[in-house]
Amino acid sequence: MRVGIDLGGTNTKIGLVDDNGKLIERFSFSTRDFSKPNNWVKRCLLELKGIKGIKTIGIGVPGAADFKNGQVLYLPNLPGWEGVKIVERLKSGLKKDIKVAVDNDATCMAIAEHRFGAAKGYENAVCITLGTGVGGGLILNGRIYRGSRGVAGEIGHFPLVPWGKNCSCGGRGCVERYVGNRTLLSWAHRNGIIKKGESLEDITARAKQGDSAAIEFWDKVAYTMAPVLVGVVNLLNPDVVVVGGGVSGAGRFVLSPLKKYIKAYAMKVQARSVRIVQAKLRNDAGLIGAAMLLDL
Amino acid sequence: MRVGIDLGGTNTKIGLVDDNGKLIERFSFSTRDFSKPNNWVKRCLLELKGIKGIKTIGIGVPGAADFKNGQVLYLPNLPGWEGVKIVERLKSGLKKDIKVAVDNDATCMAIAEHRFGAAKGYENAVCITLGTGVGGGLILNGRIYRGSRGVAGEIGHFPLVPWGKNCSCGGRGCVERYVGNRTLLSWAHRNGIIKKGESLEDITARAKQGDSAAIEFWDKVAYTMAPVLVGVVNLLNPDVVVVGGGVSGAGRFVLSPLKKYIKAYAMKVQARSVRIVQAKLRNDAGLIGAAMLLDL
Repeated sequence: MRVGIDLGGTNTKIGLVDDNGKLIERFSFSTRDFSKPNNWVKRCLLELKGIKGIKTIGIGVPGAADFKNGQVLYLPNLPGWEGVKIVERLKSGLKKDIKVAVDNDATCMAIAEHRFGAAKGYENAVCITLGTGVGGGLILNGRIYRGSRGVAGEIGHFPLVPWGKNCSCGGRGCVERYVGNRTLLSWAHRNGIIKKGESLEDITARAKQGDSAAIEFWDKVAYTMAPVLVGVVNLLNPDVVVVGGGVSGAGRFVLSPLKKYIKAYAMKVQARSVRIVQAKLRNDAGLIGAAMLLDL
Repeated sequence: MRVGIDLGGTNTKIGLVDDNGKLIERFSFSTRDFSKPNNWVKRCLLELKGIKGIKTIGIGVPGAADFKNGQVLYLPNLPGWEGVKIVERLKSGLKKDIKVAVDNDATCMAIAEHRFGAAKGYENAVCITLGTGVGGGLILNGRIYRGSRGVAGEIGHFPLVPWGKNCSCGGRGCVERYVGNRTLLSWAHRNGIIKKGESLEDITARAKQGDSAAIEFWDKVAYTMAPVLVGVVNLLNPDVVVVGGGVSGAGRFVLSPLKKYIKAYAMKVQARSVRIVQAKLRNDAGLIGAAMLLDL
């Protein structure tokens, strides 16, 4: 049996996953109540205690992780995790033959989509998750690409606007600052597309009813981020771009214009050969991918 | 013996290269006089006729090429080359046991820098050539990365300014439109940094003499393109970024500010682990890399 652990800013999800990527059972706890690494590890061990036949455990974290050294490098929204050797800590409470690994959550999502989802069968895939944060994972030459220190894939921190808005990563003009959920919400609010208390899902619901302002909103979101996706398509010449995360719930309302802009503005050969598709595994992708971090 | 052929917009260079990447002999002819594929092939065959012991020939072209199928896809500055099966054509005039391949010239440059130059020994390298065109080549996981259709690496056509200036590639706001030689020249001209008839090399010469306007000019060039390099560093987490092409002749005047901006604005882990260096093989990189396209 495989276990995937998805450390989220709000909740930590734990899932039992079989070799075919099927999620058999899941449970979760509030990350906030156990946000310090020591407490979090104890709580995870408690959850894992009753489970028989665990062979491998993978942890997905919302930030930079070093898969090779089993270490969390930096989590922007969870202080106190910098440099934590999470694999070693979890292992010390487990049976010796259980293998443990850690990686970035968007990387886990890319692994899952490549093994079982929308990127299945493709050699080169770019996966992007659109949510509060904007993450990314790269499948190149049929394998996850991690880069030199294990932190590759950060599409959300590609500068979209040169020397634009300050980003929490220390950079300027990052994609995340323009199409992260918070920005989109305040943008929709400012333009009277939603009222107070409404969410991005409400905009999608209205788009489905044919509301032109709602449809235009998602087109504008696609228009805003298209240049970076055009660039990534030109640079990496992938077979497929997989769009996941909360915003991808807008489905065709964001996917169709994105496709339109990429096909029209990417270089000819790249544009012709790329598919732009929605993620398949949705909310479970991170969990399933984490469970697949290690081969048995 | 290996042969490299570098099809340039102005001149075609042919070089004999040994297995250690040493350029033993070189000769060239004007591409303009033989710009049609048929004439060009004939002229190349004429040059190759007297050479004994050729085992492999590699051709670097200024545009999109499909290494796998031995085909030129599209050369923006040389009409009439679209879809030309250049490998087949050249082979038909050669002894049967001579292997021939074609690829993009920036890809050839990246191969050469990785085998014998500034990227030697690194697993992940991003190579960028700054000239009339801006090209790029990627070494990922120790091998040249070509993407799904063989056209990966186009850093010059990553949108720098969202929905900015129209580019000949069909895109908008591409890097090449802002830091290609022509733009830099007219920019320097407009700002009184050079007089009519002077070149970018004159600016570098003046920078060496301590001319502050000249030094500032190169800093501004670095500042202009830094966001895309920051993005590529965040996305690919490379060990090294190799800067080549004519503009790299400005040396530390463009390299130092580029380093400064990347180190300050890329994500922490990526910034810490990346080196920004000048290409080593200079003008011969394309020729040497072409000769190395195929293993013996």
